[in-house]
Amino acid sequence: MGDHELKQMIAAADAAINCEDFDKVMEFYAEDATLVVMPGKNATGKAQIRSALVAIAEHFNHSLEVRQDDLLVIEAGDTALVLAKASIRANRKADSPFVQDRRATYVFRRLEGRWLCVVDNSYGTELLVQPPRSGDHKLLGST
Amino acid sequence: MGDHELKQMIAAADAAINCEDFDKVMEFYAEDATLVVMPGKNATGKAQIRSALVAIAEHFNHSLEVRQDDLLVIEAGDTALVLAKASIRANRKADSPFVQDRRATYVFRRLEGRWLCVVDNSYGTELLVQPPRSGDHKLLGST
Repeated sequence: MGDHELKQMIAAADAAINCEDFDKVMEFYAEDATLVVMPGKNATGKAQIRSALVAIAEHFNHSLEVRQDDLLVIEAGDTALVLAKASIRANRKADSPFVQDRRATYVFRRLEGRWLCVVDNSYGTELLVQPPRSGDHKLLGST
Repeated sequence: MGDHELKQMIAAADAAINCEDFDKVMEFYAEDATLVVMPGKNATGKAQIRSALVAIAEHFNHSLEVRQDDLLVIEAGDTALVLAKASIRANRKADSPFVQDRRATYVFRRLEGRWLCVVDNSYGTELLVQPPRSGDHKLLGST
C-alpha cells in the first residue's frame, strides 16, 4: 500500500488543509461529496464543505494539523474505500490543546481519470456509538 | 434512517446469506465488487466472492447467522457509505459457538437505478489494527 496514488493524494489534501489553502483542498472533492463535519452533522456539495472547513479552521484558531497514517485501500473498480489512522491536533486554547486520534473512513471514486473524495468521514464507525454533541454544532456555526 | 431503501436491501441480503441462497446473494453485488473475506484476504469480482461465501458457509458448518443493526447511511450522489453493527453468529462446533460483533463498513453505488454493494468490509476500521491471521486463511481455502 506504500505507493498507492491515493496515499500521496491524501497527504497533499492534508497539507492543503494545514495551510488553509481551501481552493486547493476543494480540488480533492467530487461535486456531490459529503463531509461528516461532526457526529450528526454532514455537509454535502462543495459549497457546504468549503464553508464547514473554513468554520473548522476558525474554531481551532487556525492551528489545525491533520495527518493520516497506515492507510489501507480497498479498491473495487472505480471506487475505493480508504481506512486510515487520522491524527487531529490543534491549539484551540493555550491551556487546552486539542488532540484526537480517529480511525477514519473515506470513499473515493475515479472520475475522469483521477480519484476524488466522495465521502469524507474521519469519525469512521465511531458514528455508530457516538451521539451528536449539541454544543459542537453551535461552535461550528450553521453551515 | 429507519426507512432507507438500503436498510431493507441489506436485511434481504443477510436473509439470503443465512439460508445459503447464493444466487440471490450475488444479486446484491456489483460485478467488480470487493469482499473482505478476513483481514489480509480480499475477494474481488462475483466469481471470487461467491466462492468465498460458499467456503465461509462450509467453514461454519452451515450454521452462519448474520444481522446488521443501527445502520447509518452517508450518501453522496450515487455513492453511499453504510456503517452498521454487524452480528455474526455460528455453531461451528457444538462446544464453541462463534460469536462476533463488528462495526462494519459497506460502500454501495446506485447503478442502473438500483443500489449494488461495491465494497463489503464487515471488519470496518478494525483492519487498521488487526493483523492477518494466517491460520484462518487455511481454514477458508484458497478462493
